[in-house]
Amino acid sequence: MRITIIGAGRVAYHLARVLSEQHEVVQIYSRTLEKAQQLAEQFKAQAIAQPKELLSDVDLVIIAVSDQSIASVIEQIHPYLPHNLIVHTSGSTHLDVLKKVHARAGVFYPLQTFSLERDIDWQTTPLFIEAANEQDQTLLLELAKSLSKRVYNYSSSQRLSLHLAAVFACNFSNYCYDMAKQVVDAENVDFSLLYPLILETANKATQNDPRQMQTGPAMRGDQNILNMHQQMLEQSQRNDLAEVYALLSQQILQRHQSS
Amino acid sequence: MRITIIGAGRVAYHLARVLSEQHEVVQIYSRTLEKAQQLAEQFKAQAIAQPKELLSDVDLVIIAVSDQSIASVIEQIHPYLPHNLIVHTSGSTHLDVLKKVHARAGVFYPLQTFSLERDIDWQTTPLFIEAANEQDQTLLLELAKSLSKRVYNYSSSQRLSLHLAAVFACNFSNYCYDMAKQVVDAENVDFSLLYPLILETANKATQNDPRQMQTGPAMRGDQNILNMHQQMLEQSQRNDLAEVYALLSQQILQRHQSS
Repeated sequence: MRITIIGAGRVAYHLARVLSEQHEVVQIYSRTLEKAQQLAEQFKAQAIAQPKELLSDVDLVIIAVSDQSIASVIEQIHPYLPHNLIVHTSGSTHLDVLKKVHARAGVFYPLQTFSLERDIDWQTTPLFIEAANEQDQTLLLELAKSLSKRVYNYSSSQRLSLHLAAVFACNFSNYCYDMAKQVVDAENVDFSLLYPLILETANKATQNDPRQMQTGPAMRGDQNILNMHQQMLEQSQRNDLAEVYALLSQQILQRHQSS
Repeated sequence: MRITIIGAGRVAYHLARVLSEQHEVVQIYSRTLEKAQQLAEQFKAQAIAQPKELLSDVDLVIIAVSDQSIASVIEQIHPYLPHNLIVHTSGSTHLDVLKKVHARAGVFYPLQTFSLERDIDWQTTPLFIEAANEQDQTLLLELAKSLSKRVYNYSSSQRLSLHLAAVFACNFSNYCYDMAKQVVDAENVDFSLLYPLILETANKATQNDPRQMQTGPAMRGDQNILNMHQQMLEQSQRNDLAEVYALLSQQILQRHQSS
């Protein structure tokens, strides 16, 4: 398959990398030519920075830009690729954002967290596809299956729920780690001491219902510890952490009292 | 070493299990005799429910009860074991809680999350010890080293900070998983789709600074997505989740704007 990638960020990089193993990445487009070049070099693609340079003899165009830029990108590129299949890769953007501008619209959403520094295990990464017409759906299904064992046809509304859940499971849990690191850093205690706990907690949640796996002072309703922790955070003038501590503890307490 | 365990909950179970491999668990004490019996059977110990039955010819007594019960337990057992080394296993309880009643006081704190259903990898579990006198410190150090490769002498205040951080890293991250499951359950979407994301997020945090690993709409300052998510939660009448979403997003936004 001949593929063009729009964007040069983390998702674009990881997609270009895995797609170039079995397919041909023809062009990489970024408003900043340098960024496109950095990526294009690695995957033997052509770097471009002008929509008029987009080649139309490709099977698929993947928009891998920030969610808020998708609407303006489709406006820009549609005139040059009116008959091509164009997909976005966003969990939180409705198919209609493309479809109202471009008929052959689709979605190719990998449910994973992408960092430049880390490799992705594509085989186990769930891929969610959606297309405005059936033929394109079939084409995306084939492409997805060439990358991952876990491919799903999902509607936009299902995908949006999943993405919202991912914010809780991934972005917010990472912020919990970040807050934990700030607490130990302030006492010159090594954050790596918490690694076994972090990994065990995540493993538990993927093998049992996390509600059943809840532990800690809030779950036990231990007001002495809850008050002590609240005081520790207030005394060290970390009102931001104290606010999170109060809200999450109160909710955990309620959820486990009523169970 | 001859060891008595006070308590019959999760921590008592896991301690009895690993200690009985190299040491002798002599007695298990619980106010509920049945609970003590259930544990004692498995580890060839004697089950007791009365403090006066406690044998004094043991090397160590481990109080593994809920934090809020430690103070009353030491009052109860001290008269029968006035010269024995007695430790608690709590991250959030000061050594003084034992010491003001009992001279040979200590702490033996495993930093891990314990469930009855899951085995613990003791070799990699950090153990934190503290004792009122040097001889007991040495004894606890030896015992700890027989279980784990990661043993630390920590003061009560260091241990309290670590435990507070553990609430953020473990209890609160688990609650994030729990909230994520509630979001997908409401749409009949399979929670297991989030497993790769959960595991990758935890792995990342143990290999890099979690602040640098933050992703998601709040980190990118994407107000459109933030507003959409807020609306989705409010429309499904999940004001509890909406409140967490608003607070954590606002803090992530601030932390990454100022960086």
